Order: sequence, then structure tokens, then C-alpha cells
Amino acid sequence: MMVVEMAEGSTRRDLDRVCESMAGGGRSYKVAAGRGGAYVMSADVACGEESAPFRAFPGVRSVSVTTCCHPLASREIGGESRPMELARGLWIGDGEPLVMAGPCAVESRKQLLATAEGVQQAGARVLRGGAFKPRSHPYAFQGLGSEGIALLKEARATTGMPVVTEVMSSEEAEWVAPHIDILQVGARNMQNFSLLRTLGELDRPVLLKRGMCATVEEWLQAAEYILAGGNERVILCERGIRSFDKNTRNTLDLSVVPLLKSMTHLPVVVDPSHATGRWELVAPMSLAALAAGADGLVVEVHCDPAEALCDGPQSLTLDDFAHLMTRASKMFHALNEEEPSWRMPIAR
Amino acid sequence: MMVVEMAEGSTRRDLDRVCESMAGGGRSYKVAAGRGGAYVMSADVACGEESAPFRAFPGVRSVSVTTCCHPLASREIGGESRPMELARGLWIGDGEPLVMAGPCAVESRKQLLATAEGVQQAGARVLRGGAFKPRSHPYAFQGLGSEGIALLKEARATTGMPVVTEVMSSEEAEWVAPHIDILQVGARNMQNFSLLRTLGELDRPVLLKRGMCATVEEWLQAAEYILAGGNERVILCERGIRSFDKNTRNTLDLSVVPLLKSMTHLPVVVDPSHATGRWELVAPMSLAALAAGADGLVVEVHCDPAEALCDGPQSLTLDDFAHLMTRASKMFHALNEEEPSWRMPIAR
Amino acid sequence: MMVVEMAEGSTRRDLDRVCESMAGGGRSYKVAAGRGGAYVMSADVACGEESAPFRAFPGVRSVSVTTCCHPLASREIGGESRPMELARGLWIGDGEPLVMAGPCAVESRKQLLATAEGVQQAGARVLRGGAFKPRSHPYAFQGLGSEGIALLKEARATTGMPVVTEVMSSEEAEWVAPHIDILQVGARNMQNFSLLRTLGELDRPVLLKRGMCATVEEWLQAAEYILAGGNERVILCERGIRSFDKNTRNTLDLSVVPLLKSMTHLPVVVDPSHATGRWELVAPMSLAALAAGADGLVVEVHCDPAEALCDGPQSLTLDDFAHLMTRASKMFHALNEEEPSWRMPIAR
Amino acid sequence: MMVVEMAEGSTRRDLDRVCESMAGGGRSYKVAAGRGGAYVMSADVACGEESAPFRAFPGVRSVSVTTCCHPLASREIGGESRPMELARGLWIGDGEPLVMAGPCAVESRKQLLATAEGVQQAGARVLRGGAFKPRSHPYAFQGLGSEGIALLKEARATTGMPVVTEVMSSEEAEWVAPHIDILQVGARNMQNFSLLRTLGELDRPVLLKRGMCATVEEWLQAAEYILAGGNERVILCERGIRSFDKNTRNTLDLSVVPLLKSMTHLPVVVDPSHATGRWELVAPMSLAALAAGADGLVVEVHCDPAEALCDGPQSLTLDDFAHLMTRASKMFHALNEEEPSWRMPIAR
Repeated sequence: MMVVEMAEGSTRRDLDRVCESMAGGGRSYKVAAGRGGAYVMSADVACGEESAPFRAFPGVRSVSVTTCCHPLASREIGGESRPMELARGLWIGDGEPLVMAGPCAVESRKQLLATAEGVQQAGARVLRGGAFKPRSHPYAFQGLGSEGIALLKEARATTGMPVVTEVMSSEEAEWVAPHIDILQVGARNMQNFSLLRTLGELDRPVLLKRGMCATVEEWLQAAEYILAGGNERVILCERGIRSFDKNTRNTLDLSVVPLLKSMTHLPVVVDPSHATGRWELVAPMSLAALAAGADGLVVEVHCDPAEALCDGPQSLTLDDFAHLMTRASKMFHALNEEEPSWRMPIAR
Repeated sequence: MMVVEMAEGSTRRDLDRVCESMAGGGRSYKVAAGRGGAYVMSADVACGEESAPFRAFPGVRSVSVTTCCHPLASREIGGESRPMELARGLWIGDGEPLVMAGPCAVESRKQLLATAEGVQQAGARVLRGGAFKPRSHPYAFQGLGSEGIALLKEARATTGMPVVTEVMSSEEAEWVAPHIDILQVGARNMQNFSLLRTLGELDRPVLLKRGMCATVEEWLQAAEYILAGGNERVILCERGIRSFDKNTRNTLDLSVVPLLKSMTHLPVVVDPSHATGRWELVAPMSLAALAAGADGLVVEVHCDPAEALCDGPQSLTLDDFAHLMTRASKMFHALNEEEPSWRMPIAR
Repeated sequence: MMVVEMAEGSTRRDLDRVCESMAGGGRSYKVAAGRGGAYVMSADVACGEESAPFRAFPGVRSVSVTTCCHPLASREIGGESRPMELARGLWIGDGEPLVMAGPCAVESRKQLLATAEGVQQAGARVLRGGAFKPRSHPYAFQGLGSEGIALLKEARATTGMPVVTEVMSSEEAEWVAPHIDILQVGARNMQNFSLLRTLGELDRPVLLKRGMCATVEEWLQAAEYILAGGNERVILCERGIRSFDKNTRNTLDLSVVPLLKSMTHLPVVVDPSHATGRWELVAPMSLAALAAGADGLVVEVHCDPAEALCDGPQSLTLDDFAHLMTRASKMFHALNEEEPSWRMPIAR
Repeated sequence: MMVVEMAEGSTRRDLDRVCESMAGGGRSYKVAAGRGGAYVMSADVACGEESAPFRAFPGVRSVSVTTCCHPLASREIGGESRPMELARGLWIGDGEPLVMAGPCAVESRKQLLATAEGVQQAGARVLRGGAFKPRSHPYAFQGLGSEGIALLKEARATTGMPVVTEVMSSEEAEWVAPHIDILQVGARNMQNFSLLRTLGELDRPVLLKRGMCATVEEWLQAAEYILAGGNERVILCERGIRSFDKNTRNTLDLSVVPLLKSMTHLPVVVDPSHATGRWELVAPMSLAALAAGADGLVVEVHCDPAEALCDGPQSLTLDDFAHLMTRASKMFHALNEEEPSWRMPIAR
């Protein structure tokens, strides 16, 4: 792939000239929006090909030729890890883990507010809750829909916590975006390219869950669809992959946490609830995720798991969650005191 | 799940009464359209629960309680296998295998027409070709789009063959449906429930590919979304699952062919091209699929694979394809002569 | 890897000289017995390294440098496919499929003889039956042991059919070899290197089952352990791999049949019984395996599956088996008449 | 399964009477040695069957009927977690994590001693090192064999650290046992039942690695083979399972740590080196394993990874290892101070 980065002060005309030259040379290309500027990407370029001609074009800042198919998501082109602002004053990737918590599905006003207040007191900074639920069969509870969105807004007004919720189509994304702080793409839609393209054009951070059998490259390429549209705020969320062992709902692949840290600047969070499907494994795997270097967690908490309409067996009670947060905090500070802003060594 | 089947002559009022009774009992429910009538489905029913009350309601034909989450797709509720008409005079599941063939992507008028004529002469009955291509990263060739659809229509006009093409969103499905005979859902979108719901409302057969790591139940539940919307024409297409071995692009899971025959009335076809990713494995696996009892094949054929913009290494030449068709025909008739309409024994 | 092939008339001294030169150059090496001569193999050789010096040594026939780690099992070094004699007058790989059939476990004289006679009448050429059974937990029926071996010998004496049985350790292999015609290595022992080395030194064909999650390369490398010991008669048996879907016991990976044909000269057979774990899938998958080009089948048949001590649900009755054999024969001849000695095209 | 536990003071005759009654009732059975007494196990018992008759037999302490196929390894029959003495004064499972470290393969006196001293100084309590190496193909370095065992003994004499090494067959196990403190079963041999039976009769702790695609039940059933032979000292070692993603050598399945804690009393350790295959992921995954509640670690450390004959890319340097140990210790104490002897909640 050839990546032509336009300089900050470059003009529309400079950009057009690069594109014309690409087209003239018989190369397909795509203009991508990136950090403060435009990129012209062409996949019709072999490695080792001469990139010099484009360097001389006016308005071109740099030209790279790479085998990587997710350049904007890579550290090589996209740059180092850096804090990302998710909502006013709320950052991820600034050294302090960010915990998003709440019920799997928004079920009622009472359930949502009780859970929201509880998780906030325990230290969560973002409220999660599903209004539109992806369900394997059409007869299962599909979420409260727009009523759920209204309840999430009310919970935000009450607690001040930003909210994250899942969207399953471009239409839903466009409809939900004005109301909700962070939009989530579920595992089943990780390669719903139509949805990803729409999210690239919206001004909302995206929590992108890993597909059930997605490789790390496919996941970063899915993120690239969003980044290429100009939306730089993508958070990667590991939620378990599908394997042969059925003792847990999925197989939490925690090694991707340090692995992604070496490949991308995007923040990485872990969802131990969907990964394991069993509440009693959520606390140990949350601690493990933070010990592995995750930037945050997404945890299902319910004020009354036994009555949950969806995924009760994997939800923590408010007490379990508060206990986990205390332990996580002690652990984090012990690791951090030893080595502020703990990061794995990337090269030997 | 409780499945209340309304009788053929039942009225809207009969239906409403069942629904009201469901709601009154605190049960969620969904009205599904099925073979010549309506169904009221409720997942809020435990197995063994008394179904008698609903039997006495006017307009109710039958009431079943089942653990199966894809009742319309099942043989139990949905009935026996039966031929399905895909386009005027074109049937699948009538005993004779149906072969769909053509290029991975529509690339040009010349390429499409040459390939279409070639596969037709060799015995293919449906032309396949992608106009909208799902690609892992945003910089790869994404298909010719509406221009591709126009070329497919031209190829149909020239050869008389119905055409099948992939759609990736509700919007695309609605736009493409008036022009194209059969709509394909790709592996990555098998659980794009928004798309499935839209397809349930369109009057077009749907070729539903298995997701890369979908279980057979999840696949049938995805089909159920379409069936529940009133569209009865769903064809299941096995195209390989993801496994640890990377010698083939995917792992063709041929055992699902006879397995599905025992579970569902829907026709089952096999795509050996995406399953293996290697042209030299396509012919043996095509024969294997038919020997296992598949109702048809979806095969990638290109008039000049070396020049293909997409998936050349897995495309057969026209000569390879013609050779395969001759062999397949001999094999099929030998099996069929021995035992007309060969089907595996379903119960001992 | 460097492969130095000694010429047929070469002396022990010639061999020693090659070895000394390897050692003198600081390379580790291993002397392997191959088709009618010795090989000196060294893994301490980079691709592209100069092989000329060894070519000039007396007694050296050829020198190759390859990235392949299973040279004797490869077509490149090990040669083309060729018929293999398994017992007096019994060949595999000669164009006619060879079927091995019998019960999972030898249970009694009556059961074994009834099954043996039945499968022979239907066209099986080898009797299979387990005397030593690998079982996941120590409290399950572990086979009749030496008594089972005696019964297998009696069944052979009665029917004239050679027999194949599983061995699980070097000790068992050495003890069983004088009594039994073909030794089987089960999936769990595919990388029991101690057992493989012992089998390399015995004069008995080995039926080497694929490990539950073995790649094709690992499988061929396991075969290489046997070949390198001087035993050239290895048959590869696909029996399903482990995947996420639990509708079948394993996932039959039939694409490896044509794939292996392009990589190795060793014969390839398929066990549809363990692969599927369901008797009603055995016949369709047997036909599929032969259509894909397999050299033979290994099928579980029991004179009374309902009473089987082991794997009854995957065993065919004698009638089912006879029916399958008739169909297989018709199918095979139709394919073969069209193109005698059907093989997939290996290069375009 | 029926489990008859004999009382401590029961006689041989009491045991025989239970066995005779089992046999008389047409049940197969196996006598297993367990904690301070004998068990008679029979798999020929359906759940719900009456166990009363055996309760009345003399010398019988208890009778249980269970669906679990690894009773001695279960908490239900085998009891609560408890510290296990591995060598004089060396315990595992006593609340303090135990770290085993050393090179993948013993290569030379110098390499082994330098590494042994280094890991000891950093806090490792057991020295690991392979003398017999399982290698996928027969031409790779297979280990120093008996010379390697001698070097391990020398390193133990010098440092005082007990040593653990892999054995691959019954013969090797019997030969190595008198010289080495802890015997390791590799992933490829997890279901080498002949080896497991031999280890059940030896007086040495066994480090039982999980098979590459073994379920948790199969793993515990493999442990049961050893326990049933009378050897109570089995340590379970998670080392990654095989999945579709090839960015790491295997997929570390850390959720099994808390899961196993709820199922078995056996200690659980984690090998992050084989799991990831990449040294830069070893430290984060080591911390994650301890945070998840592992009883210890098995870490590959080499005094000079660049020169390692085997698995250099996954070996830590001595400095990396020392750094990891410091961090692990801080983290562990922070977690432990909060909640001494941290264990996940097992029941809600």
C-alpha cells in the first residue's frame, strides 16, 4: 500500500493533483481523513515501489510504502499511543484505567437508575446499557429501542455519566448519535462495512468489539474503515473469541492487550462479562485484563441479576462490582507506583 | 418457545385475540408470517407448559411447544423439504442439482458476458457476480456498484439466466431487489439482523451464507429472521468455517449438508471456491458436495483467472468448469439411478 | 533443510564421510532410511545455501535444499504417488478404493465374527477392531487387550481378511506387531514421538490418524518420523478436526484429501465414523470422501449397534454398510469410466 | 459414575467384597488409590441409581453417584484445595505464587548454570529445563538426553533448587524419576494414557500441561489417570490452546484459572512463554495470570536468548525476568493485603 500524507496547509488542488496522478498511473486510490489532514491511499502498489515522484508534489508531507493494510490504525503511520477524549473531560489512555459498567439491556427506569447510581459510586466513569439488542433468534427480547435511549439520557442527566450503547445499522447509528456519547459496534457487526462507513462520518467515539472469529488484522482493518472516514476516536474492545471449549461462553484472548499496544495507538479495553458468560469469573478476569495493560474495562452490572431479562448469569451485583473496583484500584496503584505509566517493552 | 399457528381462514380479529391473550399473560410475542398463514411465537414459555388454552381460540390451527429457536426453519413446524421456485421455471430442491457460477466480482462488460456464456454452455443455471464487494480493508477494490448491477442485467438479457448478487445493507437490498433475481447475504453479514429483517419483507429468494464461525443453530436462526418476515425462499450456503489450519482459506464443513437435511426443509448448496480458496481443490470438493447430497453449488468461474481483480486463485477457468460439470453429471446420474432422489436415512 | 541422498551402490564409508563433513561443519544431522537407500538430513541449513560441496562426495546421488520439514513424505523428495502393498496381494493407492470396516471395539467372539463376515460380504477388504482403546477417563471400558488380539487373529483366519488395530505405546506396538497386519496410531497419539520412532523400525504398515488439531504439515512431519526410521508404509487417515460446532463429534476436513494428493505420495483414507459421530451421516460422508479422491475408507460397522460397548451411535448396521458399498461402487465406476484413475489437476 | 470410598481402617477383604458385588451385578469397576485410602469406581451406573446397598458394606466410608468423570480430581469427591509439597520444604498452593523458570532446552553446562543462578536470585523456586524435547519433525534438535539430566542434577546441587523436566514415554519417566524432582507431561502427550498410568505409580509430582485442543474436562480426566494410580501430586499447567489467530503461538486461555479453582483442588499454574511464543508478551501475561489467581508460573528464561537452540523468541533475559519478579511481587502483595489468600467467590 502507498500512503501519501498531505501537509497541514495543503490545498484542495494539491490533493486533486495527487489523485489525478494516481488515476493517470492506473492506480485505484481512496482519500482518507486522518489526524489533522488528508491521506491518499492506494492498494495498487507493490512493496519496494518507488515513492519518490509523489514526494516532490506540492502539499505532500510524506510518502510511505507499507505491507500493512490498516495504516491509520498502525503506530507506523498513525503515530504513538495518546490520550483520547471521549466526552467533555473524560479521557481514555491517560494512564488511569477507565471502567464502563451497567446492565446488558436497559429494562426499566428503576433498574437503570439504580444500577447507574451504584456503578458510579463504585468508580465507573461511563454507563453502559443496550437499547437495541442483537439476538440470535427473532423471538427473543430485542431491547426497549427508543424508550431505552430516553432512559439512558435520563440516567446521564441524573448521574452526569456519559453513556455507551450499541447500534446495529447505519440508520440506527444516525438516529442514536445525537443522543448518546459513545456508539458501540457489537461482535456480529465488526465487518458490517456499511455501518462502519457511517460511523466514520459521525462525531462520536466508537467502541468496536472484536468479531467472534476475527484476527487482530481484520479487527484493525475494521477500525481503519472508521478512521478513514475521518473519525479518529475508535476504542478496541476484546470480548472473547470462539473456540472449541464450551465451559466459558467465549475464550477471552487477553494476549491481544499487549499485542495491540505494540501495533496500534488506539486504546484497548476488555469485556470480561461477554467473554466468560459467568459472573464468578468476571472479577478475576477484570484484574487480569488490567494487569495485562488494558486501558479500561466494560463490565455488566445489574442491580438484581436474578431478574435480568438478558445475560443475568454474567452480571455482577452492585456489591460484587464495588469489591472488584477496590481491588482493581489497589492492584493498579501497586503496579503503577513501581513503574509509572506501565507499558510492556516493545522492542528488545 | 410456544408456536401458535393460525388457520387459513382465520381473521385479523382471531389473530389479535391470541396476541392480547399473550400480552395479558405477561408474555412477549412476535407475529411471524409463514406458509400461507400467520404464527404467533412466544419465547416466554417453558417446555412442558400447558398449550391447551390457545387451542380453543377461534382461528387457531395448532399450538406447539418446542425447545427449537427456529421453528419456521425446522421440519417439525416448517414441514418437509419441497422444491422451491427461484425464478420463472427455475427450481431448486427438485432432485436435480442447481449450479450457480460466475466471477467473484463483476469487472467489465467483456469479462462478465464471456464468463456468463461459458458457464451457461457448461450447464450452469444461475449467474453469480458481485457488484458490491465486502472487503476486509477500505482501500481494496469495492466492486463496480450500480454499474455492476447494470452489467448483470445485460448478461441476464443476453443469456436468459437469472442472476444472484450480494447485498450488504438494508438500503442496498431495497435498491437492488427490483433488478436482481436472487439476493445473497455474505458470511460477514449472517447476523446483520437489520439486513435480515429487510430481506424478510422483500419478494426475492435469499442465498444465506453461513457465518465464519456460526453454529448450525445460529445459521438456522438467522434464516428464521427472514422467514418470520414472510419471505419463505431462503437457500442455505455452506462456504467453509474458520479453523486453525491455514492450508485452505476456510475449512469446508461438508457434514452439515446431510445434517441440515435432517433439520430443515430449506435447500442447501455449497460454495467450494470460498471454502478452499484454491482452484485446484474446487472440482474435487464440488463432486464431494453433490455426493453428500447438496441441492446445488455456487462456483467461481472467470474467463481469465490470472487477470481477476478479486479471488483469481480460487476461480476455475471455463474449461475446468465444463470438465467438472461433465463429471458431476455422470456421478449424479449413477447415484440417482441406483436410488432416485437420493436422501440420507433420517431415522433408524 | 539439506537432504543428501546416497546412491544405491554407496558404501557405509561413503555415508560416514558425508556425516563427518556435516559434523565438521558444525551441523547437526540425522541419517534417515528411505526408498532403497540412505539419506543424510540436516536442519541446520538455510535456504539458498550452497549444496555443491556434497554433490562431489563419492556415493552421493543428489543433494537438495528445501524449506519442507517432511522431505521423505513429500512428492518433491519422496516421489510420486504409487500403489502400496499392505499385505500379501492387498494394495492401496492402485486406483480402486480400499475399505476397512469393523467394530469400534472387539467385544466378543460372536460380535467380531458376525461383523467380520458381514463386512467382507459387502466388499470390505480389511477388518478393523480395537483391542486397546484410548478412553478419556480411566473408568471407561478399555478394551479386551490381548484377548481382543486373539479374536482378531481368529477372525482373520476365518475370513482371510487382514486386520488393523490401534496401539498406544512402543511396548504395545512391539507386542502386537507379530500378530496384526496393520498398526493404527490414534488421533491422541499423532505426536507421541516415542511411539512413532518405534513404528519406524517395525515391518508393518501404519494407519496414522490426524491429530484433533494437527495442521497438515504437523501430520506429514509425524509421518516423517516413521519414514525416517525406514518404514515406508504409512497411510494417512483424516478423522475430523476439533472446531466450535458440536453438532458433529468432529469436523470432517475433506479438503485435505485433494490437498494431500498434491503434497505427498502417501495414500489418504477417511474415517467418517469418528469424524461425524452420527451413523446417519456416515454414508453421505463416505460417498463424499470417495468423490473427493480418497484412496479408501475406515468405517465402523457393528452387527448390533444398539448393544455396542463403545461408539454405537456412530456405527452402521451390516445392512446400512452393504447399501453404502453398492452406492459407492456405482459412483466410483461412473467417475472412473469418465476419467480412469481420477486425480485432481495439480498445476494449472 | 458410582464412587465407593473405603474407610481408613478397612481391610483388603472389605475391598474385595465391594468388588465382587460390583462384578456380580454385571458392573465393570476400577480400584483407584486416593487420599489415604482406596476407591472403587464404576462407570456402569446411571445417575439416580440407588447407592444404599453399598453403604451397608463393612469398611465402606461413603458412596456417591455423580455425572463427573474425574471424581478424584473434583472438589466434590477429592476435597478442597490444599497446599501440596513438591519437594522437601517446597510447597505450592499455600497462598504464595511459585515460579518455575529456566531455559526451554538444556544446551550446555555454562548456559544452564548461568540461567539457574540468575533465576534463583530473581526469586524462582524451581528450575525448569528440557533434556528430552518433543519436536514436530525428526530432524530438529531433540535435546541432550541423559547428558541434559546430568546437567540438571548439577544445577540442583549448585543452587539447591528442585528441577522439573519433560518425559515423553513410560520408559523415559521410569528412567528419569530417580534423578528429577518434578516430571512434566507436554501438551502433545496429555492423552498418552500409557504414560499417564506410569506416572500414577511413581512417587513424583507431575506438571500436566493442557493439550492443544483439550477441553477442561478432558484435562481433568487426564489428571484422573494419574490420581487413580495413587499419585496425588498433579499440577495443572495452562499453556495456550490452538485457535484461528496466528499472531501468538497459541491462545492463552486465562479464564480456566478461576474456572479450575471452582472445579478441582489441584493447583493451577500458567506458562505464558509457550502460550504466546513472544518474549515481549510474557511479562504482561505473567502478571495477568497471577491477577487471575494462578498458583504459579512456568517461565522460559535464557541467559542469552539470541543464541538459544530452541524457542529463543519466547525466552526472557535474566534482566527481564528479574524485573518481572519485582513487579509481580508488588502486585501480589497489594492484592493479598486487601484480601489475604485471594480467591474468587465460588458460589453466589
